[in-house]
Parts: sequence; structure tokens; C-alpha cells
Amino acid sequence: MDIKIYKKEADYSYTLGAFPTFELIDAMPECVEEIIVHSSFTDRDRLEEKAGRIPVVENNKLISKLSDKENVYVIGVFKKFSCELDPERRHIVLVNPGNMGNLGTIIRTACGFGYYDLAVIEPAADVFNPKTVRASMGSLFRIRHEKFADFGEYAKRFCGGAESAGRRLYPFMLDGSCSLRDADMPGDDRFSLIFGNEATGLPAEFSGYGQPVRIEQTEFVDSLNLTIAAGIGMYVFAREK
Amino acid sequence: MDIKIYKKEADYSYTLGAFPTFELIDAMPECVEEIIVHSSFTDRDRLEEKAGRIPVVENNKLISKLSDKENVYVIGVFKKFSCELDPERRHIVLVNPGNMGNLGTIIRTACGFGYYDLAVIEPAADVFNPKTVRASMGSLFRIRHEKFADFGEYAKRFCGGAESAGRRLYPFMLDGSCSLRDADMPGDDRFSLIFGNEATGLPAEFSGYGQPVRIEQTEFVDSLNLTIAAGIGMYVFAREK
Repeated sequence: MDIKIYKKEADYSYTLGAFPTFELIDAMPECVEEIIVHSSFTDRDRLEEKAGRIPVVENNKLISKLSDKENVYVIGVFKKFSCELDPERRHIVLVNPGNMGNLGTIIRTACGFGYYDLAVIEPAADVFNPKTVRASMGSLFRIRHEKFADFGEYAKRFCGGAESAGRRLYPFMLDGSCSLRDADMPGDDRFSLIFGNEATGLPAEFSGYGQPVRIEQTEFVDSLNLTIAAGIGMYVFAREK
Repeated sequence: MDIKIYKKEADYSYTLGAFPTFELIDAMPECVEEIIVHSSFTDRDRLEEKAGRIPVVENNKLISKLSDKENVYVIGVFKKFSCELDPERRHIVLVNPGNMGNLGTIIRTACGFGYYDLAVIEPAADVFNPKTVRASMGSLFRIRHEKFADFGEYAKRFCGGAESAGRRLYPFMLDGSCSLRDADMPGDDRFSLIFGNEATGLPAEFSGYGQPVRIEQTEFVDSLNLTIAAGIGMYVFAREK
């Protein structure tokens, strides 16, 4: 297989580093095309055992080509895959996330708090970009994700039909009408936490959807960092296991 | 003034960008040495008005030297300053934070939730590095911060003496004995939220201090990102204004 530096149009992508590569093999072995290792990788026996029938190939030159500056000893090449969100589960909806590191970090946090369905409203950072995959620490392989051309398309699928009637929407906005501490907790798992772009937040029209929520903060900051706002929102709405 | 690329040993540092520079002028005008603007900066009138008697100097070459790759049109040069933490207030204690971006982001979040006292246990990322200042979005100028050689030095000052008797410590640990949801909320402001290094967390000995707290998470992630764990902790312990 002739592997090139990632492009959005490609039908494959890759993990950078041992941790996300092990996550990939664990969660989605059927999507792994091959694993590339550096000659100085020290955990090759365990990797080969986990990999089973997936080819493991040593290729220092390719690793240095794909991993730009950082220390990477393992890369897992995988076919891009598509998913459908579960209409019965709680969703994270990201409207126009701009930064791949943030997108990956939010995926990691979502997975940590039991949110396994992510809707991404375009235009948006690329979920499959190796930078996103890396920031997610491989959590991308544990969740379902789906892209939507606009929020209307998402709402039509999940808030319109009979099966999803009753899905509660919580847009997070600086001027949300309800403090997060007073938000009505949903009675079941059919709810969506909605977060906007890093720089611009959610468009004003979202104040008309569901229960718009604000995270109280002092006058000394402009806003919280998106990944932190999302983390707090997910924590508050998560239920203890 | 001959301004060089930041070094830890220097007695000055600088903000990169208009937002943190305005924050600097607002919060600590007495520390500002001079402001450097790019000839294409569009908000110079407002800047000069805010700056008052602080010199505003146009110098494109210096801006490009100090700001490496990103688009920066304003730089505020300031004298480093020292602070003393307030023994009566709630503290954030960071033990060996390693990443300047994370340190700055935590400062920004702290400021957003009304935590204005930050203890940094060394070795640690440099609070005054322009990368930290930038990630803090200028919140660094709104808080008190102090470095300690080790946690013992901090504890001696704030947990030993009569005035601080009763300070409650909450170390955040993956194996903390108490879930954050069940943590005893402190009765007053004399408490400290303690967070460890990005890669290693807090040393095991912290399980013997105060009430060690864990943020419940699924088995699918290794741990939360430090800035997110800290953000959630600060949110939960913040009181509504």
C-alpha cells in the first residue's frame, strides 16, 4: 500500500503513536489496513500479538514522512468508516468546530463521560484528520459520528420524527437564558448538548431551541475555552454509573 | 528599550496580540514598559487612549521577531511582577504543570470562575512565558500567583499557621477516594483544589491530604485532559455570584 501524507479527500487516514494505534486495533480491527512501526519501537511483540492478521511493517522513512516533527514510533493506517447516530442516545452536537485539536479533545472527553454519538455540523474541522485522531487519543474509534450540512438536517432526523419526539436540546450560549446550575435535567437519554464555534459561539437563532444554557462566569474573561465549556456541560449532564 | 525574544531569566516579558495587551493595560498599567504596534494595526487610536502615558511605538520588524509565525499586531512589554497569595481565599494549586498552553488555559478558566490565587509547585512551566500569557488571554494580570519549591513549602504557609487552620485540601486524583459528586463542599473560601502533571497526575502521597477527589469516567479513556479536569473541578467548587 502506497501511503501518502493525509488529505481530506483520501479514503484512509492513520493514527500517530502507540496509544491511539492500540485503541484502533481494539475498537475497530476490521478497518485497519496495516501498521507501520519504527525500528526502535520497543513494544513490538505486544503489538504483533494484538494485531493478529493485520500486517505490521517496519518503515522508518514512512514514519518520519507522516509524523512531521513529533516522536512517533507506530502508525496505524485505517479505512475511513461511516456511522449513524443512535436516535435513542444522548448526543453531542458541534456546530462548525474550527480546530482539530479541540475537536479531538472533545471526542476524548465525550467518550470519558459516556457520550458515544457526535453530530458535526459543517463547515467543520475534519474528524479523520490525524491531528484530530491524535487529540482524541483514539477515542474516535469508540464513538459514532456523523456530519450534517446544517443544523436543520440534524433536527429533521432527530427532533422531527416520532421515534425522536421528545429529544431535548440544550444549546450552550454566553447569553443562554438558563444558568447551567438551574437547567432541567432530561428524564432520559434523548437529549443533545449543542456547542458552537471557538470564536463565534452558536448563531443567535439557537436561543430559540430547547433550553439555552449559560455557564456562569466572572466579568474578567471573554468566554471559556470551547473544550472546557463542553467538558463542564458533559460532566453536569452525565449520570453516574 | 532593547527587547529580545523571551528568556526565562529576563526581568520582562510581553503579551502577543491585542486582547491580552488591553487586559494588561487595564489590570496592571504600572507594569507596562512600552507597547509595540504594527503599522497595519487598525485600532491604534483606542490603544493610545487606553495607554495614557505608556509609550506606543511602531516597529514591524520587532513584532515579526517576537511573534514567530502567528498574526500579531500589538505587543505589550511588561516588567515581571511578584505576588503573594491571599490566605483567606480559595486557591488553585498546580503541581508540576508541564505545558505552557495548559497553564495559561487553566489561568483563564480560574479567572472565569472567580479563583484569583494560583500556587505553582516547581518544577513547572513558566507563568510569564509569552505562550502562557497568550493562552491565558491576559487573565494572568487578574490573578495572584506564587511559585513554591515543593508542596511542603505551600502547606507550611497556608495549612499550618493559625490564620489558615481549617484550609481544606482537595487533591484531584484518578483513584481519589471520593467521587466529585459526593465531595463535601467547603463552608468558606479557605480551600485549595490541587491538580497534578499532565502525564503523571499527582504523586501517590497526595491521597493522604484532605479529601482526594476523582472525576468519574468510563473505562474507555485513560484520563481526562488536565485543563478539562481542572475546569470541571473549578466549576463544581465555584459558588454562584
